[in-house]
Amino acid sequence: MSLIDEIRHGNRRVLARAISIVEEGGEEGRQLIKEAFPHSGHAFVVGVTGAPGAGKSTLVGALTGHCRGQGLTVGVVAVDPTSPFTGGALLGDRLRMQEHALDAGVFIRSLATRGSLGGLSRATGDVVCLLDVAGFDVIFVETVGAGQAEVDIMRYAHTTLVLVTPGMGDEVQVFKAGIMEIGDVFAVNKADQEGADRLARELEAMLDLAGPRAWRPPVVLTVAREGTGVAELWQALVGHRDFARRSGLWEEKLRARAEAEVRGILTARLLDEAWRRGGERGLLPRLLEEVAGRRVDPYTAAAMLADGLRGADHGGPV
Amino acid sequence: MSLIDEIRHGNRRVLARAISIVEEGGEEGRQLIKEAFPHSGHAFVVGVTGAPGAGKSTLVGALTGHCRGQGLTVGVVAVDPTSPFTGGALLGDRLRMQEHALDAGVFIRSLATRGSLGGLSRATGDVVCLLDVAGFDVIFVETVGAGQAEVDIMRYAHTTLVLVTPGMGDEVQVFKAGIMEIGDVFAVNKADQEGADRLARELEAMLDLAGPRAWRPPVVLTVAREGTGVAELWQALVGHRDFARRSGLWEEKLRARAEAEVRGILTARLLDEAWRRGGERGLLPRLLEEVAGRRVDPYTAAAMLADGLRGADHGGPV
Repeated sequence: MSLIDEIRHGNRRVLARAISIVEEGGEEGRQLIKEAFPHSGHAFVVGVTGAPGAGKSTLVGALTGHCRGQGLTVGVVAVDPTSPFTGGALLGDRLRMQEHALDAGVFIRSLATRGSLGGLSRATGDVVCLLDVAGFDVIFVETVGAGQAEVDIMRYAHTTLVLVTPGMGDEVQVFKAGIMEIGDVFAVNKADQEGADRLARELEAMLDLAGPRAWRPPVVLTVAREGTGVAELWQALVGHRDFARRSGLWEEKLRARAEAEVRGILTARLLDEAWRRGGERGLLPRLLEEVAGRRVDPYTAAAMLADGLRGADHGGPV
Repeated sequence: MSLIDEIRHGNRRVLARAISIVEEGGEEGRQLIKEAFPHSGHAFVVGVTGAPGAGKSTLVGALTGHCRGQGLTVGVVAVDPTSPFTGGALLGDRLRMQEHALDAGVFIRSLATRGSLGGLSRATGDVVCLLDVAGFDVIFVETVGAGQAEVDIMRYAHTTLVLVTPGMGDEVQVFKAGIMEIGDVFAVNKADQEGADRLARELEAMLDLAGPRAWRPPVVLTVAREGTGVAELWQALVGHRDFARRSGLWEEKLRARAEAEVRGILTARLLDEAWRRGGERGLLPRLLEEVAGRRVDPYTAAAMLADGLRGADHGGPV
């Protein structure tokens, strides 16, 4: 039986191993995804994003509990682009696992960046694919913040939940503006804190300002620690999914997701290849030395490396 | 006189126009940088990063004032990877400009992502190059957060300043761990708030834990709004620069910066080119449709697009 067959039959140990393989980003991982991909596409993928401290992990934990109560199995991918060096994601794993450690219907995995641009985004797509093939009904993809990396990662989701929380200061209000467009559902978490109602009203006003759209994102008040509002939030997420399926938005999301998957893989692949070929020919260290010394400009250097990728020695710039 | 010559002679209007041109990322911008690059390499480039709300803009403003007091000219590049949609950077520009609006020795420009992976990093490098050629003594590159995009952006700096601030909650402590390695100097800002001394002690302990290194990053307490600690902070930044120049670390930083510049340009270029060629042949929309329908896996799709880049129709995967 192949690894993918074993995963489809519910072997969690093999699933964990396969995830480690795709994380590495080598040929073995590529083959796994090629085999897994046709069997994927059944899970409901929910992206969860928000500023550090907004309570994403707690809320995902509460949503997981709610889904389990409805008999749904849950996969969680916690993506941490903020810890490129220290392996912070591992610490996160240990903290998260406790609550659902003995529940075979829950599988949690953290991913941290390996430093290569686009690598984390690609790995996220692959891990979602494996959890999907493993038969999880719902997959939460949770990520810190709302930078470009996070926006890319949210493209893997069918439905995106944006968390905001009162008392984060003025700068965060601007920050929030940047994520208005990616939210399908908004949660005002820590709704028992001062300013929550005002924040919810501001959000509603901003969403109204955006004008009439096919889907007007709902705003749900939650207190994740106590489970308050979690059932309503889940209903809002499912509501978006059902609306998307009825309206053609679903197909649009699937195309956007396909584009994100291909783009992530292509970026990592082209850059790695250009870098590797440049290294093989000894061109790369020489070029970097020249750029560092300001004798060759970086555009000319990039063009030379791009030429190497095309197999040409002295062609025009790619 | 060429645009670059005019910039070198202090024409700020032409500088602003050139920045807009390189931001667009086209051939005209590439030619500008090719011409500018040999004249660059004189400015002291300081990266400033930290979580939203840490007070980066205020501190950069205070450092700018301090530098001006010493007769140094200052360029500021404020990079906002969190606002891919709403043009939040423009708002930032207007807020920042007020204090130094009438000072010809200060030039401030905000950059927001245009959505292409690596595009913002490339644009940052180009804008730093133009400000450098324009003769600014110090260039502050300020960016929100500490995600992968921000880490990439900090690679353009000679010296990286990391801001932390008390009372940001537990999740932020983990978050902070991810940026320990990129900080050459740390500032505990809002040092008049409760918990600042404890945070500074924790930071010092973490830095000690990292073991003996050639450069042990200093921790400076600041209250940016009142200017407290700003002179000491500037001394710490200059201290790092001087140490780097003495120790060979400077050359290492220059090579890392060259690598970041070339990598940023190459990523944007290869991906754009693969996307454009795929589009020309009508392959791209067909492929994305097939991936969305789970009939072609994204690795196979990426390999076909990569082949297109090499001019081969049925070669092996790049």
